[in-house]
Amino acid sequence: MVKAGVMSGPGEKIVIEEFEEPMVEAGGIVLKTIYSEICGTDVHLHHGRLSDVPYPIIPGHVSVGTIEETGGKLKDIDGNELKKGDLISFYDVHEICNECWFCLVAKATTRCPHRKVYGITYSSNEGLLGGWSELIYLKPGVKIMPLGQDIEPEDFISGGCGLLTSFHAVERSGMKLGDEVVIQGTGPVGLFAIAWARSAGAKKIIAVGSPTHRLEAAGAMGADDIINIEGLDSEERVEEVRKRTHGRGADIVIECSGNPQAVYEGVKMTRDAGNYLIVGQYTDAGDISMNPHYDLNKKHINLFGCWGFDFSHFYKAVKMFTRISNDYPFKNLISKTYSLDEANERLRAVENFEVIKAVIKPN
Amino acid sequence: MVKAGVMSGPGEKIVIEEFEEPMVEAGGIVLKTIYSEICGTDVHLHHGRLSDVPYPIIPGHVSVGTIEETGGKLKDIDGNELKKGDLISFYDVHEICNECWFCLVAKATTRCPHRKVYGITYSSNEGLLGGWSELIYLKPGVKIMPLGQDIEPEDFISGGCGLLTSFHAVERSGMKLGDEVVIQGTGPVGLFAIAWARSAGAKKIIAVGSPTHRLEAAGAMGADDIINIEGLDSEERVEEVRKRTHGRGADIVIECSGNPQAVYEGVKMTRDAGNYLIVGQYTDAGDISMNPHYDLNKKHINLFGCWGFDFSHFYKAVKMFTRISNDYPFKNLISKTYSLDEANERLRAVENFEVIKAVIKPN
Amino acid sequence: MVKAGVMSGPGEKIVIEEFEEPMVEAGGIVLKTIYSEICGTDVHLHHGRLSDVPYPIIPGHVSVGTIEETGGKLKDIDGNELKKGDLISFYDVHEICNECWFCLVAKATTRCPHRKVYGITYSSNEGLLGGWSELIYLKPGVKIMPLGQDIEPEDFISGGCGLLTSFHAVERSGMKLGDEVVIQGTGPVGLFAIAWARSAGAKKIIAVGSPTHRLEAAGAMGADDIINIEGLDSEERVEEVRKRTHGRGADIVIECSGNPQAVYEGVKMTRDAGNYLIVGQYTDAGDISMNPHYDLNKKHINLFGCWGFDFSHFYKAVKMFTRISNDYPFKNLISKTYSLDEANERLRAVENFEVIKAVIKPN
Amino acid sequence: MVKAGVMSGPGEKIVIEEFEEPMVEAGGIVLKTIYSEICGTDVHLHHGRLSDVPYPIIPGHVSVGTIEETGGKLKDIDGNELKKGDLISFYDVHEICNECWFCLVAKATTRCPHRKVYGITYSSNEGLLGGWSELIYLKPGVKIMPLGQDIEPEDFISGGCGLLTSFHAVERSGMKLGDEVVIQGTGPVGLFAIAWARSAGAKKIIAVGSPTHRLEAAGAMGADDIINIEGLDSEERVEEVRKRTHGRGADIVIECSGNPQAVYEGVKMTRDAGNYLIVGQYTDAGDISMNPHYDLNKKHINLFGCWGFDFSHFYKAVKMFTRISNDYPFKNLISKTYSLDEANERLRAVENFEVIKAVIKPN
Repeated sequence: MVKAGVMSGPGEKIVIEEFEEPMVEAGGIVLKTIYSEICGTDVHLHHGRLSDVPYPIIPGHVSVGTIEETGGKLKDIDGNELKKGDLISFYDVHEICNECWFCLVAKATTRCPHRKVYGITYSSNEGLLGGWSELIYLKPGVKIMPLGQDIEPEDFISGGCGLLTSFHAVERSGMKLGDEVVIQGTGPVGLFAIAWARSAGAKKIIAVGSPTHRLEAAGAMGADDIINIEGLDSEERVEEVRKRTHGRGADIVIECSGNPQAVYEGVKMTRDAGNYLIVGQYTDAGDISMNPHYDLNKKHINLFGCWGFDFSHFYKAVKMFTRISNDYPFKNLISKTYSLDEANERLRAVENFEVIKAVIKPN
Repeated sequence: MVKAGVMSGPGEKIVIEEFEEPMVEAGGIVLKTIYSEICGTDVHLHHGRLSDVPYPIIPGHVSVGTIEETGGKLKDIDGNELKKGDLISFYDVHEICNECWFCLVAKATTRCPHRKVYGITYSSNEGLLGGWSELIYLKPGVKIMPLGQDIEPEDFISGGCGLLTSFHAVERSGMKLGDEVVIQGTGPVGLFAIAWARSAGAKKIIAVGSPTHRLEAAGAMGADDIINIEGLDSEERVEEVRKRTHGRGADIVIECSGNPQAVYEGVKMTRDAGNYLIVGQYTDAGDISMNPHYDLNKKHINLFGCWGFDFSHFYKAVKMFTRISNDYPFKNLISKTYSLDEANERLRAVENFEVIKAVIKPN
Repeated sequence: MVKAGVMSGPGEKIVIEEFEEPMVEAGGIVLKTIYSEICGTDVHLHHGRLSDVPYPIIPGHVSVGTIEETGGKLKDIDGNELKKGDLISFYDVHEICNECWFCLVAKATTRCPHRKVYGITYSSNEGLLGGWSELIYLKPGVKIMPLGQDIEPEDFISGGCGLLTSFHAVERSGMKLGDEVVIQGTGPVGLFAIAWARSAGAKKIIAVGSPTHRLEAAGAMGADDIINIEGLDSEERVEEVRKRTHGRGADIVIECSGNPQAVYEGVKMTRDAGNYLIVGQYTDAGDISMNPHYDLNKKHINLFGCWGFDFSHFYKAVKMFTRISNDYPFKNLISKTYSLDEANERLRAVENFEVIKAVIKPN
Repeated sequence: MVKAGVMSGPGEKIVIEEFEEPMVEAGGIVLKTIYSEICGTDVHLHHGRLSDVPYPIIPGHVSVGTIEETGGKLKDIDGNELKKGDLISFYDVHEICNECWFCLVAKATTRCPHRKVYGITYSSNEGLLGGWSELIYLKPGVKIMPLGQDIEPEDFISGGCGLLTSFHAVERSGMKLGDEVVIQGTGPVGLFAIAWARSAGAKKIIAVGSPTHRLEAAGAMGADDIINIEGLDSEERVEEVRKRTHGRGADIVIECSGNPQAVYEGVKMTRDAGNYLIVGQYTDAGDISMNPHYDLNKKHINLFGCWGFDFSHFYKAVKMFTRISNDYPFKNLISKTYSLDEANERLRAVENFEVIKAVIKPN
């Protein structure tokens, strides 16, 4: 039997349940979980803030583990055979249809209405389809990536979905060699955005966030300059950015905070004709005010919303992480590792910002 | 002596004054004005809504006329010689410095802080540097474009700066062959945006505006579908757009209205992963509210502000206008032609939306 | 029984064979063929110039017809139900895998190694999977597009695959409103490239080709200027283009000729920092010489190869064709309509350039 | 009096001549030369391979030095005042007109026909307008960049124009975080292209070049993998690249070799739908053969020529160099430092590939 943490509904305590071992179909994989993440989405799930969630669910979308069994001989996308014991992660989004208008005409697969997500859109009645479990069943067609010899599981899971979301954000931001960059927010998405921006050739990176232990992490991830949002009002924070960017504002500003007011502020931190990208507003946390004349039109701004990530980002992020994982103390971002039955306190810890990244270790 | 209309300050009546004939420097041109425009900017100037205006001024930024005199032999940018009597227009923006960071590094010349604009940033004490005048003096370095045999002055001036601003907007919007497009606003900028979008290969164009005579003009400019904003609330207008775009919203939405609420509404008219461009918010008309989660992040939007136009837009717009000027009843957009001494009533007519386009004919 | 033309191998005569009516699977469609095309590819197939062709085959890749039967209730990509009798066309490429590196990481689905093509990669033993047949069986997953009330089948088939390939070419060329454009080649791809370039806002279109009847067609498709390649050598043709483009060369040059020498020549017709797109070199017709210094480096060229088209091009081309099909005499490009049993003479006619477009009408 | 090396004509020995100290105009700068470079262009100049060179000239285009005198108070482009003794470099291209079609419409200023270049297009009769001189006179309008405290002159001059040209190349190549990259050529342009590609987030960099000491430098600049062209034929070199790129070829290939055959080879090293950029073909070294079907069309290639660099590249390269100059042993690329009167042997050393980078130290 396999143990997994089940969230039976919003507000309900996570309980450990036992499941049958999965039957492997042709093309499927049984993964022995090493780590799964607890991210802000799990807090949102616990508060019932996402719609159409088929509770009860096994939470946990981005995970790492070793291959326990494959349904026939399988290869990764580069043509290498997958073997039992290989360390892999998988793209938590599944069943992108490749049939709908968003997939085929808009080529915006993160907006495909048919996509399923491990740990979010699958009921625990459908199987071991979430990461807070000793085993995860990867259905045929789930895209995987071997992490290889050079990535330690602790480094990879320290970012979790934030590692991948922020990769997409940096790519989509149009960042170029020599740009001056602001990252708003110093949670996992923001911290990895700093490391990716550093890797992508940012000339200067200014991190805007709090509290102190996250700002220290921002420095370790490659931020050159830190602005602590506490004790400064919005106007002062904008002014601090301008002081550090020749009075112009930054070439690229990436919002990774989840706070709607950050958007109000971020456009003002962006230079005229610069790029502003919003990736942190994963749920509805309220409206903001904007001035279309000053903030958008006269500013000649390029503003991008950024939703999720697709397989190309997952592929490139893993490849690139192979290169950089030893250059940054990623694993130190894991404030605490929880066992499977510490689910409820780990959710509380994430919600209260007590930790930077909390992960679970089911085995 | 040369007669010109002078606005001596905000709220002051325009009066006709007499000026010396201009002395032509090498590289300069004296232009005999056929038409100059009265645009929304002139209303703003009259209300004192622009800063750093060196009143008294001769208003009128985009104009057409014939060459009266040149300071030596001059050529246009394609290498053709300019001759007395040639019908030309000129790029009203002047002295873009090509020295500053915005010119040279950002390559965003419309944000160059040194730019001067005919009819706006020159005092009448400095010369005949505005269009509401029998003669206009084009200083050395002012960029001109011959209109050639195929463009009638009435067709060109019917758009005025709107013809050029909207060209920039359509180019910057990323519109591609086969796109479904919404144009918000049916003043001169919006009406020309419709014609340019038609020329650029929009599959379907939906015009959103009022009142009836402007909507009729929108149809004549190439709109396939018209949504009258009157009698519909914001939600209904968005719903009407969605009905006409397979429930998705438009690929490209271009705001040309000047009303801040149009921005609130326009993002909702844009499909997920679509493009929204804001060009109509030329002055500060107040704030709006936006929801960063639904309107920007989850929508995976590309949102562009668009300020002014540069010479490349002026050049291409004139060239392309040669091609299309006979395909649309542009000159019918001119509701009224005023003489030089009817300045005050023409300003009132523009302000009250009595006219689509008002022009003055100084000679 | 269903009659279809079968090419049993390179050099073999096409013979009419009889097949069982297709059994419709869920998601499949039986199409009653109105027209199928004979294109250059069919000539190449007949000469054995393509590799891995599973002869015997039923040729004919792009076709139009009416729905005879559907496997269950089906909808098009915009959500409209498909009904018996609907006039449709279909994307001849099938089984793009959405699993491989080219599909998922490079997002270059036209380079997916798993793609199957109706009329080319299917054996006649596998069913009615080519257009030279009274019925065509569209397997589940084949993408279709309704042509609606506004497109006549003769207009659509007059371009065949050329209508779609050239749409991709124009989109990928980076053409913008106001560009000066050269189209090299006046076969179906080139002629439709002219019409699409016109629709996309080209300021001037220069067609370079032969013979006379095709050049006349080029004019009807919207070319402003015609250069007959006969009687001029390569240098003279380049010179003729330069004369018509202010001595600079064209902003955009699109090669649609199939002649390798056109590439040698086309880069020289492109202005410095302009765009050159190659779409006509569908098979290997030999090498050319180029000078990397003058033709590529100093020219600061953007040169694009363009292979096939994907569903987004098919979708947008059909939508846009609804708009323009009455504006051009497309159906006049069909020099001759052949019956199913005239296969051999129609191949000869295409090969000898006797016709612009030859189509077959199996029913 | 000021000593400078003068090349009086092709094939002529460089001789030291004495000049008057320059008179500083308002906006001009007298620079005390620390280093000037000897690059391939100087060899070409010495062989008379460039046209319209106004011999006698003082060669040396990219240089570093300290400000000796300014014509009035001057500021750099970020608004900082320039002071005597400041370490600066300058953009060797001057008098980009900002009036012509290439400047204003194509926005391709490196193709402006009016540009002047220090050390190439100025006669020594016009003044100290080349770098092989104790003093260099920077005319009003010459764009300068302070190198600040963090860049050592030896590190900067070790790249010379190659540092800047390669920055442009990497930017224009469209390189993105996670790309696999090939650099062809291991001279100064290629070696700096490696360092910039590393900084821009290349996942893997394969350097293709020779001889051994340059390949060792390639490793020091950040190449992960080295292919020595000696002992391998063209097909084998392509095969070696494919082996290291999953059989596909590289995402981005940048030609920095100057050898036309590298272009023939480089397109074959590029993956389908990948990007190939040519920057090394600065002079005409002959034609090559290409196959338009395999190399361009079917490959769905994006091929870019890249000419020179503009001020934005100069600005960003200097800013970014501040960041990376301590991370690589740039100054070790300087094989030899020559005094002003060793001109003839230094030219021979560059021509014979005895050195990686040769620089002169006039003071």
